[in-house]
Amino acid sequence: MSDLRPLLEPESVAVIGASKDPAKSGGVLVGSLLRGDFPGRIFPVNPRADEIQGLRVYPSIGDVPEPVDLAFIVVRRELVIESVVACADAGVKAVAIITAGFGEADEWGGAEQERLVRLVAERELLAIGPNTIGLVTMGGRHLGTFVDFPRWEDGPIAIASQSGIFAGALAQDVMALPAQRLGIRHSVSIGNRIGVSETDLLDAYAADPAVGVIGFYLESFDDAPRFLAKAAEVKRTKPVVVVKPGRTERGAQAAVSHTGSLAADDKVVDQLLAQYGIVRAEDEEELIAFLRTFSQAPLPGGPRLGIVTFSGAMGVLATDFAVAEGLKLSSYSEPTQQRIQALLPGWQSVGNPADLWPAIDLDRRAAMLEGLCAALEDERTDQVLGILLAVANADFDEMRPAFTRLRAEHAGKPLHLVIRGTLRESWTSTLDGLGIPIHTSLRLAVRAMAAATRHAAGRDRVPAAVELLQEVSR
Amino acid sequence: MSDLRPLLEPESVAVIGASKDPAKSGGVLVGSLLRGDFPGRIFPVNPRADEIQGLRVYPSIGDVPEPVDLAFIVVRRELVIESVVACADAGVKAVAIITAGFGEADEWGGAEQERLVRLVAERELLAIGPNTIGLVTMGGRHLGTFVDFPRWEDGPIAIASQSGIFAGALAQDVMALPAQRLGIRHSVSIGNRIGVSETDLLDAYAADPAVGVIGFYLESFDDAPRFLAKAAEVKRTKPVVVVKPGRTERGAQAAVSHTGSLAADDKVVDQLLAQYGIVRAEDEEELIAFLRTFSQAPLPGGPRLGIVTFSGAMGVLATDFAVAEGLKLSSYSEPTQQRIQALLPGWQSVGNPADLWPAIDLDRRAAMLEGLCAALEDERTDQVLGILLAVANADFDEMRPAFTRLRAEHAGKPLHLVIRGTLRESWTSTLDGLGIPIHTSLRLAVRAMAAATRHAAGRDRVPAAVELLQEVSR
Repeated sequence: MSDLRPLLEPESVAVIGASKDPAKSGGVLVGSLLRGDFPGRIFPVNPRADEIQGLRVYPSIGDVPEPVDLAFIVVRRELVIESVVACADAGVKAVAIITAGFGEADEWGGAEQERLVRLVAERELLAIGPNTIGLVTMGGRHLGTFVDFPRWEDGPIAIASQSGIFAGALAQDVMALPAQRLGIRHSVSIGNRIGVSETDLLDAYAADPAVGVIGFYLESFDDAPRFLAKAAEVKRTKPVVVVKPGRTERGAQAAVSHTGSLAADDKVVDQLLAQYGIVRAEDEEELIAFLRTFSQAPLPGGPRLGIVTFSGAMGVLATDFAVAEGLKLSSYSEPTQQRIQALLPGWQSVGNPADLWPAIDLDRRAAMLEGLCAALEDERTDQVLGILLAVANADFDEMRPAFTRLRAEHAGKPLHLVIRGTLRESWTSTLDGLGIPIHTSLRLAVRAMAAATRHAAGRDRVPAAVELLQEVSR
Repeated sequence: MSDLRPLLEPESVAVIGASKDPAKSGGVLVGSLLRGDFPGRIFPVNPRADEIQGLRVYPSIGDVPEPVDLAFIVVRRELVIESVVACADAGVKAVAIITAGFGEADEWGGAEQERLVRLVAERELLAIGPNTIGLVTMGGRHLGTFVDFPRWEDGPIAIASQSGIFAGALAQDVMALPAQRLGIRHSVSIGNRIGVSETDLLDAYAADPAVGVIGFYLESFDDAPRFLAKAAEVKRTKPVVVVKPGRTERGAQAAVSHTGSLAADDKVVDQLLAQYGIVRAEDEEELIAFLRTFSQAPLPGGPRLGIVTFSGAMGVLATDFAVAEGLKLSSYSEPTQQRIQALLPGWQSVGNPADLWPAIDLDRRAAMLEGLCAALEDERTDQVLGILLAVANADFDEMRPAFTRLRAEHAGKPLHLVIRGTLRESWTSTLDGLGIPIHTSLRLAVRAMAAATRHAAGRDRVPAAVELLQEVSR
């Protein structure tokens, strides 16, 4: 991590193009740093202002009287190069170029971006952007994004993205959830990638002991062989999840005008990720569900899935998803069947999924806890999905301590939940933070469990995909 | 609808096995009817009670002094047959057998269900269940479900289901949403299907002018040729959406122990539904998204999709989904490109998706409204997806009247939205009820738009799938 420290955990920052208008990007950025309780000095730079949000403003970066680790650049695109030069002259170590209009835009922008690439290399500047939303690093209390965050939750997740949404609007959604928020240690929007690459960040995240799982949104690879080799090494201890859009030709074209990315053939990318044991998520929603799963649940020991459900239909639907995703539903063992049978009217047979709705009228508390416990203890299951109906006549007291005990007694085996019904939000909050991922749909639950299963199975796999690799690296 | 009126819109109901415990099924049912403001008489039947929830209780159905249209039966399974006989003797016209433990359970239950089938046929009783959660019919203010509903929203949707979740926990979730609730006119859980079938309900729904779209959850077909022929006719005026689980062998097995359904080969089912132009939804979440779409938006004139996005990445992801689902993203016409270009910095080219984030700092209101308006007016689009970032620096006043005008001026072309960011819930509420479906994910949005497109294209198609049909009807 030492290499990227001036970027990720700067001791002082400047905002070149800081705005007096707190709603404009250059104003929100100053506000974010202040509200994020940044412990170092913040130097707004703007030749036409004296004070911004209570901070003294300097006319140029050269006028700032102290060393600056990181400068955000939020000026119009014609002024970006001279701003970067001024930063380098002033001894600034890292730049985050917020301004857009370069490689993703017109011919002038493309040429200018090439000049930028050479400039940051020559002057040995760490650089993200142009066309970045900024970055967040909780270790340094460094909320360097121009999207306003009412709250930001720290945790074991690190993200690197060619899109701003993981330090912007989508991250806002996740941080605003009443429960099942993601705890994110780092979220860096690398933008058009003129300097710091996804592999540099992967390196830094791998070295940070506070990071447990790493997610990427990449429209292209900077250096696919280097990234894959590094990811295959890192994934032995930290799961790596990648969203790579451009699955279709039209989608790949759209990526060009977003970040100027020229994508490799998607089938090759897909095979490579699979061969290197890197988890691929289909979209931003799956990335969130997968990161949630890896950051909360233990890894499954295998693909054998036990389903305990209070809705027969949702058990049937979950079974379809599970089989399609490569998970296996075997029968429960004889002792498990007997334990579950004891909860049910005599006429009901016990299958997998075990449908426990008829047990609710008999003993709702036992139905849920004993049912889940039996499935978790069964030597024939590697993981358990509970599908709960949060309705008044299934509710019971002391649910949190009961699930805390359940989780502690079977700490090695993943338990996931999907909850439906009027009390869904209340139960989700009650059961939050216990190491039990709670998903918003059956599909996401099963996709996440299958992803964790593939990761666990392929964690130590040594890749041998030399030919494909050559193909993608051209 | 006249045939099923005693079941769907009874003038009087009895609850055989009504419970003094308001939390037990037989008690919740009485409470639901009362809170649903049922306009007719309610007769609880229980030999060991005098009064339940303020209602006089009768020892047997024979003691009820007035004609009863519909009797709910909530007794233990050994007493069901004699209860049904007593109902028939007392002149009851319809029964809803809540009790479970028949065809989905053991041998005794299977044999008993066969007796029930003969009994209701001989005595000409309309019957749903056994193993049903009940039914809801807003036309008759008839909330006949044993799951408690704090609210139930009326609307153009009718559902028939072999599962209880569409009149139970899942419907509760949908009814509890702060916005984008489904308005459901009928929701009938047919259970193990000993009498009234999905086709009978399809008939009744087709005849009800208050119904605009019809959804099914079916683990098997009662009579596939009859259902498909009827659905092909109905879909000319009312879209028909079917969830049919059991796509995998293991899923089909799970369906057997849920409702005793023996499923036909899934590939055949899939082809048949496609050939008959019936929309298939993959799971309960898609059924909801599709019903929401059909009940809110006009039908698209074709597959040409315009995307207007404030997140480049989400535009790329949406493009991948759209192409994979058979939608087409052509370029915008020259006038549209000019209109959108006018909102943007000069360097940014206009594609489809049109990424309008850079326009936010210039004029946020115009960026959103003029951008969407240009895409809606373009003669090259049949439908538009807007991907909005609900962040403070994109917010503006008078959003609802502006979107009301936008919708009115382009009433014939579907507009769908996906919203991300801190203000997501607030914007979703602001834009609720304007005929603009707002989806919780890109995937659901695109899947719903593609489903509507397929429905619109196949609305008048005459099926010619005689061989396949014979295969499924055995």
